[in-house]
Amino acid sequence: MAKSMVIGSVALDSVKTPKGEVERALGGSASYGSVAMSYFAPTSLVGVVGQDFPQDHVDTFKKRGIDVSGLKTEEGETFHWSGYYEGNMDQAHTLSTHLNVFEHFRPDLTPAQAKIPFVFLANIDPELQLHVCDQLVNPKLVALDTMNLWIDIAKDKLTKVIERVSVLLMNEEEARQYCETQNLMEAGSALLKMGPQSVVIKKGADGALVFQKDGMFTIPAIPLRDIKDPTGAGDTFAGAMVGYMARLGRATEDNLRRAVVIGTSMASFVVENFSLARTMSLRGAELEGRVDQLIQMTKIPRLNRQTLDPIGSR
Amino acid sequence: MAKSMVIGSVALDSVKTPKGEVERALGGSASYGSVAMSYFAPTSLVGVVGQDFPQDHVDTFKKRGIDVSGLKTEEGETFHWSGYYEGNMDQAHTLSTHLNVFEHFRPDLTPAQAKIPFVFLANIDPELQLHVCDQLVNPKLVALDTMNLWIDIAKDKLTKVIERVSVLLMNEEEARQYCETQNLMEAGSALLKMGPQSVVIKKGADGALVFQKDGMFTIPAIPLRDIKDPTGAGDTFAGAMVGYMARLGRATEDNLRRAVVIGTSMASFVVENFSLARTMSLRGAELEGRVDQLIQMTKIPRLNRQTLDPIGSR
Repeated sequence: MAKSMVIGSVALDSVKTPKGEVERALGGSASYGSVAMSYFAPTSLVGVVGQDFPQDHVDTFKKRGIDVSGLKTEEGETFHWSGYYEGNMDQAHTLSTHLNVFEHFRPDLTPAQAKIPFVFLANIDPELQLHVCDQLVNPKLVALDTMNLWIDIAKDKLTKVIERVSVLLMNEEEARQYCETQNLMEAGSALLKMGPQSVVIKKGADGALVFQKDGMFTIPAIPLRDIKDPTGAGDTFAGAMVGYMARLGRATEDNLRRAVVIGTSMASFVVENFSLARTMSLRGAELEGRVDQLIQMTKIPRLNRQTLDPIGSR
Repeated sequence: MAKSMVIGSVALDSVKTPKGEVERALGGSASYGSVAMSYFAPTSLVGVVGQDFPQDHVDTFKKRGIDVSGLKTEEGETFHWSGYYEGNMDQAHTLSTHLNVFEHFRPDLTPAQAKIPFVFLANIDPELQLHVCDQLVNPKLVALDTMNLWIDIAKDKLTKVIERVSVLLMNEEEARQYCETQNLMEAGSALLKMGPQSVVIKKGADGALVFQKDGMFTIPAIPLRDIKDPTGAGDTFAGAMVGYMARLGRATEDNLRRAVVIGTSMASFVVENFSLARTMSLRGAELEGRVDQLIQMTKIPRLNRQTLDPIGSR
C-alpha cells in the first residue's frame, strides 16, 4: 500500500440546508479529501489553520491516523465559509468567505512529503498547485480539482497545472466553461488532449463521466432519499479516489475506473450528514454495500447478438 | 417474434435547430415510435392524418413494413407542430401547435389489433390511452408515455392509465411534477407502487433510471458530438424498447433492462439528423456498435473485496 497526500483548504463551515444547520463545523477541500483518503491509505494533510481552530477537529484527523505535521497553525483566524442550500440542494449559495490565514498559505513540502507518490491537489489557487507540482519527486499519480473562480481569474495558471497532472477532475459546468463548449464529449476530449491520463467530469446526482485514452467510462451516482448536506461530496469523491489508487499502488486506467466507483460510493455517504459525521462513522460493510449497489445498478444483462439485426435481414 | 403496435400522434413538424431546419417533416410520437419499433418486430400503427398528409410519408412507414391500416385519413389537415431548439438543445420551444384532425382522434382498434401483445401508448390524451387499454385483449406488455400537459390538466385520468400499464415512461421533470418531489428516488418508488412492473425515468443526455421490483438499473446516454435535432428521441427510445421486447417475446425484468439498452442506442441515432432520416438509414452493424459502446462505457472492472476494508482493519 502506497502513501497518499492531500494539499488544500481546511476550513470552518457554517452551513444551512433544508435538513438542518451547523456552525463552524470542520470543512474545506483538504479536510473532506483527507478523511476519505485515509480510509484506504496512509494519508498526509498539508494545509493551514488559525489559532481558533478547535483541537476537536485536529483530533478528528488524528483518529483516522492522518499525519497532520503538514497542517500549520498561523497567527489569525481559520478560513471560514458560510453558505446555504435550498430545494434539491444542487447549488451552494455563499453568504460569506473569509480566507483569513488561508490568504497567505504557501504549501512548502518537507523532503519526505515531496516523495509521497499519490497526491490530491484539492481546490486552491492554481499558482499554489503549480508550486506543489514543482516540489513533487516522481509522483505516481497527481489528481487535480479546481473551481469556476480559477477559470475566471487564473485560467493560464490553471492550464499549466492541467498539463502536468495525471487525473483532472472538473464538474460539468466547469468543463463547459473552461472548454467553451456546451458539449461534454467535446470538452472531455479537449481536456484529455492537454495531457492528463484521465479526465473525470462530475455531474452531481447524474454521476460522472471518465475520459481515458482507452475510451469512456460512465458511472451513475447512488440515488439517495435523504441528503442532509451536499458540502464536500466532490472532495470526498476525489480523496477516496486517490486513496484507493494508493491502496492499489498502480496508476492504470482500469484501476482509475475502480477508484471512480469507490469515490462515487464514498461521496454517497458524506452527504447523508453534516460535515464529516457520516464519513467518520463509515464501516467497511457499508461501503461494500454501496459498491455492490453500483455494480447491480449498472449491470447490463447479456444480449443475444442476433436480436440486434433489423427485421427481414434474417 | 411477437407483434407490436403503437398508438399516438402522426404529425407534420416544422423544426429549427442551430444545425438547420425542416418544414412539414414526418413527426409525431407514433411516427418516431413505430419506425423504431419496426426495426425489431412486425409493427402496426394506429393514428390519424389529414388529407394533406404526403404519400411520401406513408411510403416511409411502408418501407419499414409497418401496417398502416390503422392510420386513418380524415377530412381536414394533419396535426402540425412548429418549434425550435437553441444552445445545447435540451429544451423544445413551441411556436405553434395545430391539432387539426388529431383533435377528434379516437383510437378504435380492430379485433386483430386488440390482440397485439406488445403495445406502446405514445403521448396522447390519457382518456384515449384508457380507451385503448379497455380494448386490449391479454396484452403481454403495455408501455405508457405522457407529457407535462396531461399532468397539468388530466392528472386523474393519467393516474388511471398508470395503474393499468406494465411500463411507465416519464422524463425527470414529469416524474418530479407528478410525484410532487424533487427526489427522483422517491418519485420512482412512488410510481412503481402504483402498479407498473417497471418505471423508466428518462434524463436526456444523462441517460435513464429504471425502477423495478428487483431493484434499480441505470443507463447513460451515448455521448454525441453532433446532434442535429433532438425531436423524437423519447419516442424512438420507447418504440425501440417495446419493439425489442416483442422480438424477445417475454416481458421479464431482465428483458426490460436489455430493451432499455436498445432504446438508448436507437435514440442516439435519431438525433443525428432531422425527422426520421437517420433511423431509416440505420444498419444492424451500426446499432451493434452503439450497444457495444454502452457495454464498454458501463463496465466496472472486477474489484478485490479486501481492498474495500478500512485501513487498520486488516
